[in-house]
Amino acid sequence: MYAARAFRGANVDVTLVDRTNHHLFQPLLYQVATATLSPSDIAAPIRWLLRDQRNATVLLAEVQSIVPDRRVIVLDDGRELAYDYLIVATGARHSYFAHPEWEARAPGLKSLDDALEIRRRFLLAFERAERTEDAAEREACLTFVIVGGGPTGVELAGMLPTIARFALPADFRRIDPAGARVILLEGGPRILPAYPEDLSARAAADLAELGVEVRANSIVTNVGTGVVEIGGARVATGTVFWAAGNAASPLGTLLGAGVDRAGRVAVNADLSVPGHPEIFVIGDLAQLTTNGKPVPAVAPAAMQSGRTAARNILRTMRGEGREDFRYRNKGDLATIGRYKAVAVIAGRHLSGNFAWWTWLFVHILYLAGFRSRLSVLLEWGYSFFTYQRGARLITRGAASAERER
Amino acid sequence: MYAARAFRGANVDVTLVDRTNHHLFQPLLYQVATATLSPSDIAAPIRWLLRDQRNATVLLAEVQSIVPDRRVIVLDDGRELAYDYLIVATGARHSYFAHPEWEARAPGLKSLDDALEIRRRFLLAFERAERTEDAAEREACLTFVIVGGGPTGVELAGMLPTIARFALPADFRRIDPAGARVILLEGGPRILPAYPEDLSARAAADLAELGVEVRANSIVTNVGTGVVEIGGARVATGTVFWAAGNAASPLGTLLGAGVDRAGRVAVNADLSVPGHPEIFVIGDLAQLTTNGKPVPAVAPAAMQSGRTAARNILRTMRGEGREDFRYRNKGDLATIGRYKAVAVIAGRHLSGNFAWWTWLFVHILYLAGFRSRLSVLLEWGYSFFTYQRGARLITRGAASAERER
Repeated sequence: MYAARAFRGANVDVTLVDRTNHHLFQPLLYQVATATLSPSDIAAPIRWLLRDQRNATVLLAEVQSIVPDRRVIVLDDGRELAYDYLIVATGARHSYFAHPEWEARAPGLKSLDDALEIRRRFLLAFERAERTEDAAEREACLTFVIVGGGPTGVELAGMLPTIARFALPADFRRIDPAGARVILLEGGPRILPAYPEDLSARAAADLAELGVEVRANSIVTNVGTGVVEIGGARVATGTVFWAAGNAASPLGTLLGAGVDRAGRVAVNADLSVPGHPEIFVIGDLAQLTTNGKPVPAVAPAAMQSGRTAARNILRTMRGEGREDFRYRNKGDLATIGRYKAVAVIAGRHLSGNFAWWTWLFVHILYLAGFRSRLSVLLEWGYSFFTYQRGARLITRGAASAERER
Repeated sequence: MYAARAFRGANVDVTLVDRTNHHLFQPLLYQVATATLSPSDIAAPIRWLLRDQRNATVLLAEVQSIVPDRRVIVLDDGRELAYDYLIVATGARHSYFAHPEWEARAPGLKSLDDALEIRRRFLLAFERAERTEDAAEREACLTFVIVGGGPTGVELAGMLPTIARFALPADFRRIDPAGARVILLEGGPRILPAYPEDLSARAAADLAELGVEVRANSIVTNVGTGVVEIGGARVATGTVFWAAGNAASPLGTLLGAGVDRAGRVAVNADLSVPGHPEIFVIGDLAQLTTNGKPVPAVAPAAMQSGRTAARNILRTMRGEGREDFRYRNKGDLATIGRYKAVAVIAGRHLSGNFAWWTWLFVHILYLAGFRSRLSVLLEWGYSFFTYQRGARLITRGAASAERER
């Protein structure tokens, strides 16, 4: 999206191919998953975002293949699209560490469909607990395991008890939703490993205060039906969410360049692919570096690399030299439930309320389009003051999905 | 919902069993289908609506069977629930006139999932049209057929051209969405057959002004892949929506009483089932009459019959006689696109702008819960002044669904 927009007004034809019809503000996806926001609050149709850019055409299609030697991409209907320059930004999914069978039991959080699936499972767990007559099953239904202590895992882990304690209790007659257990598993020695140690500790303390059981050095060895195993330890649970590891899009392997263990393409400093100066890789699919240092897989890095790639194409067309990509880190932010957050901004470590208000302000600013901002503010205001969830709906045949379990 | 609420404060135990977790304001479902409103604007969790009624328990489950002789219902997990009194309100689906295979090709509009499916197909049709290189396929993609000229069919038919003309054109580069054809097929001699003749004619004129082709006396003889047949006539179309006929829930046949051709239960005047004074049938599943005259299958009749059934149970518990159901018709309303509507209120025939504002006012009043009202007003205000759709998102794996076609 940011690359396409950087071509605005230029004498080029831009074709943006995506397999969804919407651009997603991924940092707030966990709020759709936890039934605070509606999908339309954090996503907007790509066409609509590019409606005023007359040199841009949008195609809803899935790319099946890229053939660098013939300079074409192949779409899902077999049709080929020729290019002069190609920018690949197909990102990453979660990595299930060579256990693809775990994905159905422990969905990740990368797309709107993912978020709706997590919301569905989260809400259904309480419905099942209310329905069952079996005490052990009830306990398992009210136990939620989140695998991965990065920002996504921490933000999910912070929201679940907040909702269970404040939004749900009046709705149920047989169970006490406030008694739900939330367990956050992190394979490494501390959660938020990309943050400074003091903020990791603060986040862990904030989560503990919300009742979350934070377990570091806990590598998942099996995700079964109704159970998660961590080495010899077993946790009976009806609901597991996955927020660990990144596995880059398989399209990266078709570019004739090397990929790292996570499947990311090792790009040149100008973001082009070695041996193919007409192909650029940006966002989470690229192994980005600035001054030789790795750049984290975050939204600002994706946006900035998109703009740089577009500018380098325009420079090349004008016969100018290319610029190197330089990541400007404006700060890192992660929220923990209501009111709490940790942040690093301009080298300063922030936590608690102030970090949370900063987080709120920054995210409202970045939301795509006025409507989303206003709507999100209202939803947040509503759920903030009433503790009620505005979007607590289960769609996609809840009862029949329940039966299939 | 209205029956359950009528027991508020009474010394009874109410169990509400539903296969979805939400109560739906069905008259606005077509606005979710046409991407104007989000699901959470017109639906609220049943638990949340009953949170303050301590004698009510909500179970998310599908009822598999009813055994009147043993006074139990059987849930989808095989568990039985015993009752002293039973109120059955499982409504109706659309009738495909003994052609169940048409349903997948022409989805109806009864649930949130239905609405999201119609939205998905409506938006995908334009995506396919933009993508194809074949002129005949493009034309078929831009042809929408709606089967059934009752209020749902008329409201859908009025919204589609409004969106195609005003909201979409700037988004596409290769097609002109304003050129989309919308065809409304009605088997009988006129659309809105339950309305007075002058209002049917006015609605047909309003639709014609929006470019809708209204075809009366048109009985669909086949819904194929990419084609609808009306006797000898064939219409090539990529998208068919179904708004014809009602087929009552199959649970009606388990009550030991007669059902009519549409599967509705012929209830006594007090809404109980003949031979089973402890079982009541309400809403679209009942063949309701008032003073011997049939009552239409509309939301107000469902709400009123729910209250009457509950009151009759409470009267019986107190040893009092039962009251007969009497439908109080507060008026009929159907909208046609922006600004136009037809209505019968207190015997007066209304049309045009005034009817539309009346419609707006009445529907805002009836929406369940303050939040929905505010949110819907904002969405409507937004789309009214900007012609933009707030909720134009395709979820559930758009590109992969596209591939499966």
